[in-house]
Amino acid sequence: MSSHTPSNPDTLSYEQAGVNYDLIDPLKVAAQRAAAATATHLSGHGFTEVAASRGESAYVVDVGPFYLASIVECLGSKALVADEMAELTGQSYYAGIAQDTIAMSINDLITVGATPLVVQAYWAAGGSDWFSDKQRAKALVDGWKAACDTCGVAWGGGETPALAGIVESGRIDLASSCTGIVNPKSRLSVGDNLQAGDAIVLLSSSGIHANGLSLARKLVERLPNGYMTQVEPGVSYGEALLAPTALYSPVTEAMAAAGLTVHYSANITGHGWRKLLRHPKPFTYRIHTVPPVPPVLKFIQQWAKHDDREAYSTLNMGAGFALFMPASQAADACQIAEDLGIGACIAGKVEDGTKQLLIEPLNIRFGDDDLQLR
Amino acid sequence: MSSHTPSNPDTLSYEQAGVNYDLIDPLKVAAQRAAAATATHLSGHGFTEVAASRGESAYVVDVGPFYLASIVECLGSKALVADEMAELTGQSYYAGIAQDTIAMSINDLITVGATPLVVQAYWAAGGSDWFSDKQRAKALVDGWKAACDTCGVAWGGGETPALAGIVESGRIDLASSCTGIVNPKSRLSVGDNLQAGDAIVLLSSSGIHANGLSLARKLVERLPNGYMTQVEPGVSYGEALLAPTALYSPVTEAMAAAGLTVHYSANITGHGWRKLLRHPKPFTYRIHTVPPVPPVLKFIQQWAKHDDREAYSTLNMGAGFALFMPASQAADACQIAEDLGIGACIAGKVEDGTKQLLIEPLNIRFGDDDLQLR
Repeated sequence: MSSHTPSNPDTLSYEQAGVNYDLIDPLKVAAQRAAAATATHLSGHGFTEVAASRGESAYVVDVGPFYLASIVECLGSKALVADEMAELTGQSYYAGIAQDTIAMSINDLITVGATPLVVQAYWAAGGSDWFSDKQRAKALVDGWKAACDTCGVAWGGGETPALAGIVESGRIDLASSCTGIVNPKSRLSVGDNLQAGDAIVLLSSSGIHANGLSLARKLVERLPNGYMTQVEPGVSYGEALLAPTALYSPVTEAMAAAGLTVHYSANITGHGWRKLLRHPKPFTYRIHTVPPVPPVLKFIQQWAKHDDREAYSTLNMGAGFALFMPASQAADACQIAEDLGIGACIAGKVEDGTKQLLIEPLNIRFGDDDLQLR
Repeated sequence: MSSHTPSNPDTLSYEQAGVNYDLIDPLKVAAQRAAAATATHLSGHGFTEVAASRGESAYVVDVGPFYLASIVECLGSKALVADEMAELTGQSYYAGIAQDTIAMSINDLITVGATPLVVQAYWAAGGSDWFSDKQRAKALVDGWKAACDTCGVAWGGGETPALAGIVESGRIDLASSCTGIVNPKSRLSVGDNLQAGDAIVLLSSSGIHANGLSLARKLVERLPNGYMTQVEPGVSYGEALLAPTALYSPVTEAMAAAGLTVHYSANITGHGWRKLLRHPKPFTYRIHTVPPVPPVLKFIQQWAKHDDREAYSTLNMGAGFALFMPASQAADACQIAEDLGIGACIAGKVEDGTKQLLIEPLNIRFGDDDLQLR
């Protein structure tokens, strides 16, 4: 992706951090095509897929009285930061890691307008001995339950395999799957109703969340005191990175309960603000207000020598979730989020025009070719 | 577990093969307790859990017009056999591995009477380069789609993370999640109707499936030609192990379409035939007929020096799935399975009495203390 090519030779790019999307993408395309061809099977059961959900963050099926949404999501490499920090401080950070893992699936599932109902845990350890650290295991269980409590979902069960030879010794591969329903069906938000004039409401992030961690980990080599380098007084880089991902389903549920309408949503993850360009319709997304940038993201931007364009194309830069909704309801939406402890702002609006994102306060433009997710 | 203690010093036990359930089980118990406490959240959405599904193979929620069932399941270590065999033969075995991975979730989901609707793929590689082997990647995609076609499910999407530092280089951690519905609700088979007089119908396995692979891999050290040792003329041990897991949902769907009733089911996986004792009710399960044992399982039993009790307590020994149903319908069930190419036999019956499994042709008894899953 052209926007990933750093202009400054000191810049630490995502590719240098070890993630090469060019190698993964051909498989993804082949898998997406094969997956799309299986949708016809649903008719044998009397159901149909919501075709517009193909390529969205969760897959949606029309099962009659409501829509069924499902997803599986990986935490990524954030647990490696928890492991490094545990060695440095003797503390366990796995309660937060559990919340991160659940947030990965729940924050994606709600983009289609779904109410999350059931979460399943996938905890694949490098060996049985991973589970013998009682403090860490308890933190993982307690954090998982607390996140379920926050989101009002039932923890259905899960898998705790010991995968020596596949998962590295001492490590754990964490993922979550989530199933929910869109009910009433009018809550479906796969973008059919996205329109010029809609307001763009941004919900605040709590930090880096769980995307950009390969870069953040690679950066440690450059820091004077590694993970213990202070991001702000009294807060180390490692601790700041480990702030758990905000859970947004309480906000979307409260908004639905208040009768607010969402036309489209985007969970701002792996491609930073380029995710605002997610929907295939040709609109211009004009941003007039950017939310405050969490100190840890400012810190990463400085040390990785990223210009604003590079930073906003990779990290959430303070915006964890975007809602596209009738402008008349945007202030109420912000109030509901704030009442739940999640910062929110009316950041911009949707306009007819070329497909592009204009972050006016920073003089950044992202075009259609800057995001190829489908 | 007492039945896992080998009596013969040459016997290769599961613990020697690297899996120590004693270390995992305390975490599992803590997780199960925490998970059970989250069920009350469903009432906030107007729904309730099917409490009897706690501890069963899939989690079930009553959402009104039907039940919702969901699950996530790990493949385990079978992909390591595919990797070893690819080095020895130059072939890719990942089409079969894909089927195995889907079978893990689908064969569990159907135990509660659910129709699988959507499968999600979880393919976590040790690095982006895993996906650059085009033959292997194509086999994985093609095999995944073919299994979805066989089961009539939609492939909703999934995750293909590159997890260097967590998943070992050159390896892949494979899992699947599955969502389905129990419809009509009378198909629910969590054991409420399990009763004395029910027939036990066993569906044939296609080989080792994806359980017991730690043991099977460890055994290679003892074999004269490793994975290339012949199990039967023209079939190597490695190839025999890689026979893909049978998919049983076509059978359970055809049975439902024919109006047959299932009172309870068990997917015979990690604890071998002890899974027949899964339901908490106190019944005696009397087996009068055992299905043929696949050559690869006979071979493992011989080389691992397992007596029949040890073998049947660990491996499927030819029975991949058990159905407990009205005796009057058992012959029809077998015919439906056979018509779909899955061997089946009426193997025994459910009786009032002490909780035990009596495999009479082999003079084996498993008691309640031989299986502690909950």
